[in-house]
Amino acid sequence: MMKRFLCAPGPTAVPSEVLVEMARPLMHHRTPQFSEVVAENAEMLKKVFKTSSPVLTLTASGTGGMEASITNFMSPGDTIIVLSAGKFGERFAEIGRAYGLNVVELKAEYGKDIKAEEVREALKKYPEAKGVYTEYSETSTAVAFDVKGIASVVRETSAIMVVDGITAIGAMEFEMDEWGVDVAIAGAQKSFMIPPGLAFVAYSSKAEKLMKEAKLPRFYFDLAKERKNLEKKTTAWTPAISLFMGLNVALKMMLEEGMENVIKRHYLVAETFRQAVQAIGLQLFADVPNVRPSDSVTAIRVPEGVDGAKIPAYMRDKYGVTIAGGQGSMKGKIFRLGHLGYVDKSDIVVELQAMELALKELGYTFELGKSVAAAQEYILKNFPVPNVAVSEAGD
Amino acid sequence: MMKRFLCAPGPTAVPSEVLVEMARPLMHHRTPQFSEVVAENAEMLKKVFKTSSPVLTLTASGTGGMEASITNFMSPGDTIIVLSAGKFGERFAEIGRAYGLNVVELKAEYGKDIKAEEVREALKKYPEAKGVYTEYSETSTAVAFDVKGIASVVRETSAIMVVDGITAIGAMEFEMDEWGVDVAIAGAQKSFMIPPGLAFVAYSSKAEKLMKEAKLPRFYFDLAKERKNLEKKTTAWTPAISLFMGLNVALKMMLEEGMENVIKRHYLVAETFRQAVQAIGLQLFADVPNVRPSDSVTAIRVPEGVDGAKIPAYMRDKYGVTIAGGQGSMKGKIFRLGHLGYVDKSDIVVELQAMELALKELGYTFELGKSVAAAQEYILKNFPVPNVAVSEAGD
Repeated sequence: MMKRFLCAPGPTAVPSEVLVEMARPLMHHRTPQFSEVVAENAEMLKKVFKTSSPVLTLTASGTGGMEASITNFMSPGDTIIVLSAGKFGERFAEIGRAYGLNVVELKAEYGKDIKAEEVREALKKYPEAKGVYTEYSETSTAVAFDVKGIASVVRETSAIMVVDGITAIGAMEFEMDEWGVDVAIAGAQKSFMIPPGLAFVAYSSKAEKLMKEAKLPRFYFDLAKERKNLEKKTTAWTPAISLFMGLNVALKMMLEEGMENVIKRHYLVAETFRQAVQAIGLQLFADVPNVRPSDSVTAIRVPEGVDGAKIPAYMRDKYGVTIAGGQGSMKGKIFRLGHLGYVDKSDIVVELQAMELALKELGYTFELGKSVAAAQEYILKNFPVPNVAVSEAGD
Repeated sequence: MMKRFLCAPGPTAVPSEVLVEMARPLMHHRTPQFSEVVAENAEMLKKVFKTSSPVLTLTASGTGGMEASITNFMSPGDTIIVLSAGKFGERFAEIGRAYGLNVVELKAEYGKDIKAEEVREALKKYPEAKGVYTEYSETSTAVAFDVKGIASVVRETSAIMVVDGITAIGAMEFEMDEWGVDVAIAGAQKSFMIPPGLAFVAYSSKAEKLMKEAKLPRFYFDLAKERKNLEKKTTAWTPAISLFMGLNVALKMMLEEGMENVIKRHYLVAETFRQAVQAIGLQLFADVPNVRPSDSVTAIRVPEGVDGAKIPAYMRDKYGVTIAGGQGSMKGKIFRLGHLGYVDKSDIVVELQAMELALKELGYTFELGKSVAAAQEYILKNFPVPNVAVSEAGD
């Protein structure tokens, strides 16, 4: 028997409460009963996105949401500015080019970000740009972009601010309306604690104006059509019913905890983890303190002399802990541990001990148990521990 | 307590074996373990499609698969011929127009089909047509098109033959390669007995040639990219993991029964149902014998004097049996009962008794129990009953 832990930056562990809900007999989607679920989910999603705009649920993975954020707002030949310092920023650029847009890619090295000031310069140089597309948490490098600062620059122009918040929304502070984000995208299998297969997209009235003249072709991902259907408490196409049901339970769990607490928990868990790994001499990949590390995933440089590609395999196959390696050119150079969604302090300790065991076997020199101890110290000092009467164990 | 039965033409009832599999802790999709599932599913799907071409699994509902069957093979301004005698044929035309194609719609009244001879004429009149798009089982009217005959006409030309088999493949005879079908689409929540959220698409080498010059933009639904990823036992984007796991179990159930038996079962169940409803004077909506009725769904004309819109609501809310009403202009004029996927003779009896109760309450005059008796008679005569030693019940 090997007990397994899913500690990747998505998909993330699904709580039993959600699994059990999804195992119930299937409900038909064109019924008053399911319509209540659609409407209730949409209301709860607004509280996670912090927006008064409708939040649409697409049956697709996050990339489908990213595609929708381009095809619904742009016309062939339009210019967009893409902030690109990792695999998912690059994906925005790829989608833009696939649809015949003029993509201005603001690039930075992996591990860094692009600052609001550079975006301001780019918008001056390309005043025709109709949109600025950025990651919030760039999952491939574990860097958080300054979305709030960038949005404050973009909102002064006619361009729309589009944020891929797939590993950020629901895990890090996000204020769609207050910050002036025009299109925001999130994904099921991240902080939302359900299996992959749903993408969430909301758009502002500024974006809606652009949508009305947008000529790129779209059908399955037609957001105006989805919005009209949501008004009638339904979806344009047959939805992934079981995921909608699981989402209903998961959103209730999130809102019961309170979004502020959810976000604080993610920060504390991530910070515990960052402190712990540095205690055994490991280096974060994010170029801290020049950039802010993401609170949903931590990328670590593979220490010299260690075969980096083997770390995820050892952790998974020998110690039951699934994490992620580096993607593309980062393969073997970094490894990434997720801590988002259904995650608490104990999960960090599970990750750390398995990581230590794998690193020890792969020849890295450090004192066994030291990262775990560092995590424990941080937990004692910083975590809110329930102030309850603790009785002796009895029958 | 009200015991509930999902008897719609999709989504269909999900067997407990599948629900339980999907309730297991989530597996990461970039692991050797999940790759085995991807590869095994793809091999099993080939046996359902009867093709040697790879069958791709998209995280989307069936409409996503329909969109892919247009955007991957056509260029702006191309002419396609769409066979349209129901809501889903019309959807092909809508997608084609949304992507700037010249859509030649061969129309027939709802309840009828379009014959191979008409397709031959249209191909002569529009020799520039690059594709013929048709339903196999038009879910909105319960008519089965003569896909085999139409394919034999199309294969003589340079056009590709595209079949929406969403409520047909896995329920009715289908020979993708032998019949000369170039693109075939199926959907999870139909004969595949899992919740919605996956579409299956396969394409021939003739279609692949067209794909190489196809200029319509596509990204999320890029079939060439999916095919390349399938060769590496993975998917282009994060897949709906829990649905892939459920599909694995469901496909094994289908192949263990044997596709020939699965298809025979669907025919027998459908024919039982058709005989039974006619025994109480109800009329099929499909223009039989000029067209072949679908074996996965039966559409019935609402009898005169009955408020048709109430039939599905009565059956669902009073008697626990969810069926479908008429869509669009058919609303209130027909009602549709599905019998596909996880369906056997006993399900037909459940549908019939609830339908009788609803119709009786809504004022239709007939002898209660007569359709059930007709079904029983057909079952006794026609169903293969296991030839086992039947012992008396004991402890």
